[in-house]
Amino acid sequence: VKSLHTELGLSLDKEGIKVVEIVQFGVGKVGKSLIKLILSERKRIEKEERIRIVYRGLLRSNSYVLGEETEKYIKEENFNFPKKGKPDLSEFIRKRNTVFVDVTNSDEITDILIDALKHGANAVTSNKKNLVKSFKIFKSLTDSKGKFYFETTVGASLPVIKTLLNLMETGDKIKRIVSLPSGSLSFIFHHLNRGKDIAEAIELAMKLGYTEPNPMDDLKGTDILRKTLILARIIGKKIELSHVDFEEFVKSNSLEDFKKGEIGIFRDRINKMRESGFVYPVSRIEGRKVKVSLEVFGKNSEFYNLKPGENIFLIYTKRYNKNPVIIKGIGAGPLITASGVLSDILRIGREI
Amino acid sequence: VKSLHTELGLSLDKEGIKVVEIVQFGVGKVGKSLIKLILSERKRIEKEERIRIVYRGLLRSNSYVLGEETEKYIKEENFNFPKKGKPDLSEFIRKRNTVFVDVTNSDEITDILIDALKHGANAVTSNKKNLVKSFKIFKSLTDSKGKFYFETTVGASLPVIKTLLNLMETGDKIKRIVSLPSGSLSFIFHHLNRGKDIAEAIELAMKLGYTEPNPMDDLKGTDILRKTLILARIIGKKIELSHVDFEEFVKSNSLEDFKKGEIGIFRDRINKMRESGFVYPVSRIEGRKVKVSLEVFGKNSEFYNLKPGENIFLIYTKRYNKNPVIIKGIGAGPLITASGVLSDILRIGREI
Repeated sequence: VKSLHTELGLSLDKEGIKVVEIVQFGVGKVGKSLIKLILSERKRIEKEERIRIVYRGLLRSNSYVLGEETEKYIKEENFNFPKKGKPDLSEFIRKRNTVFVDVTNSDEITDILIDALKHGANAVTSNKKNLVKSFKIFKSLTDSKGKFYFETTVGASLPVIKTLLNLMETGDKIKRIVSLPSGSLSFIFHHLNRGKDIAEAIELAMKLGYTEPNPMDDLKGTDILRKTLILARIIGKKIELSHVDFEEFVKSNSLEDFKKGEIGIFRDRINKMRESGFVYPVSRIEGRKVKVSLEVFGKNSEFYNLKPGENIFLIYTKRYNKNPVIIKGIGAGPLITASGVLSDILRIGREI
Repeated sequence: VKSLHTELGLSLDKEGIKVVEIVQFGVGKVGKSLIKLILSERKRIEKEERIRIVYRGLLRSNSYVLGEETEKYIKEENFNFPKKGKPDLSEFIRKRNTVFVDVTNSDEITDILIDALKHGANAVTSNKKNLVKSFKIFKSLTDSKGKFYFETTVGASLPVIKTLLNLMETGDKIKRIVSLPSGSLSFIFHHLNRGKDIAEAIELAMKLGYTEPNPMDDLKGTDILRKTLILARIIGKKIELSHVDFEEFVKSNSLEDFKKGEIGIFRDRINKMRESGFVYPVSRIEGRKVKVSLEVFGKNSEFYNLKPGENIFLIYTKRYNKNPVIIKGIGAGPLITASGVLSDILRIGREI
């Protein structure tokens, strides 16, 4: 059995432990958290799950390390990689026990993931950019030979995507998803709804680490837009980013520009809406409608009681038609995202 | 490859489709729903998941059918099985692609499941009774060679148990679980909290199918007690049913007895509690405390806004320490339970 499994790339060692080989792109916040997490948990995982996780590659935009040597770099948490130029990944792409992990924020890894998945290796990504390209690219990623998981692209470690897939695999039909899939906007709007000024709310969110380095990246709504497209595609809608009914919440590209110009209009708009309840940015997917917009919610709404920073997902299906399945919680942060990525890696480990 | 896989019991057919063989105990409400669901979905599942589900056994308390013949019975939805007496399951127990499915309400299947799991077959149960016997039996089920899933024993198709396991597998620590894992009690107490009389609330719950045939089975709290023990054991507490801090909510064994005697005391108790908020039965697991009791909740609580029949689970962990992961929704009903059972079967299909 051993030789056959090795040939298939399953690499069972002599005690029958499955070896999963990781080739990781990105050593930013999530990438570093993932390395730390794997270093601290892999002995326990090997014992409990009989899956051994080893690193066989670490790549950043301008340098990399590949092969068994990679282990030395992760153990030392040394990210000064020796090699420059374009890496040759052909050795890993055909191995059924390789998992390519994209924890970058780059849109340049997608082709590598598609190539790996086509040849039978597997992939995990926390990077939404892979999934919001053309629908054809989305299908190449999700319909390929290798296993591909991307749980953390929506809601970080909250069980959102797997719940949708679990419902669908048994023949349930997803009728509607109403969600606020952004921790930073949940935080900012929580405070706007309680009368805090927009400039102060943004400052507070920045201070507590809720926003991107440029908070306008959150406030524009692009992040919600991307997550909406991913959710819509998962439940079978063949759509492109441009088909989503969406208008940027704000236009300014920097906080200074925003404060100098647009802030007054935005403040007036929110204050006007607040007269009838609490305002939140909402993603709605139902039938042909895929929409991201600001909405007002009254007292009896699930949105009314959101705590600052909480994501919420209401999933209505054929079987859960009146009362949706509701998943709620903090859906961001490097450690939480890294643990979701690790959970996807372990799922592949159990399934190969 | 094929011959080796067949030897291992993986039964890949010539197109590389994995065959999962089901031996099902119980053809009550959930059992019949499961058969219907599999009949209506298995073609799609075979195409999309490349897993073929076939029936190789159906057993009820006094008769059974085993082997390929079983398919005829499920296709005709004919539950008059030809054989009587004790079935010989030895052929199935050693096959790595058999899934023993317990959808009974009996406490007599446990030994068969343990035997099957020990020999390498797999099992799925929606029957809590398997999991609330001694801790030693719980361990025999969950630590064995075969795969064993029981997602529907708590919260039906809501992703509760898998979320706990996914969090734990990455090294997170579950600090506290606060839950109302009973649809019938959620329904009844929703109406009590809004001033409906207890007798009327029970009648309404019975009429709408929320309760067991004898509603006292729900009102006593035994169901919550069992689910609490299962949750506590999943997160590592080595405890027995008798260790749970629990006092039956009511003592009467029939609705008539309840109405004749105890109802007054119960009504007074609830009305007294209602002066400070909404009353719900709650399961709390934290440190050495594993407790089921009636509690009062104020306006800002997650319990205050429960819709009638909704289950809720608040999961606090090392990583989700201030804001828990919250899962909420209807957690009962034969079709919803059957689809959770099917989802567990498919999970085994992907992992074997």
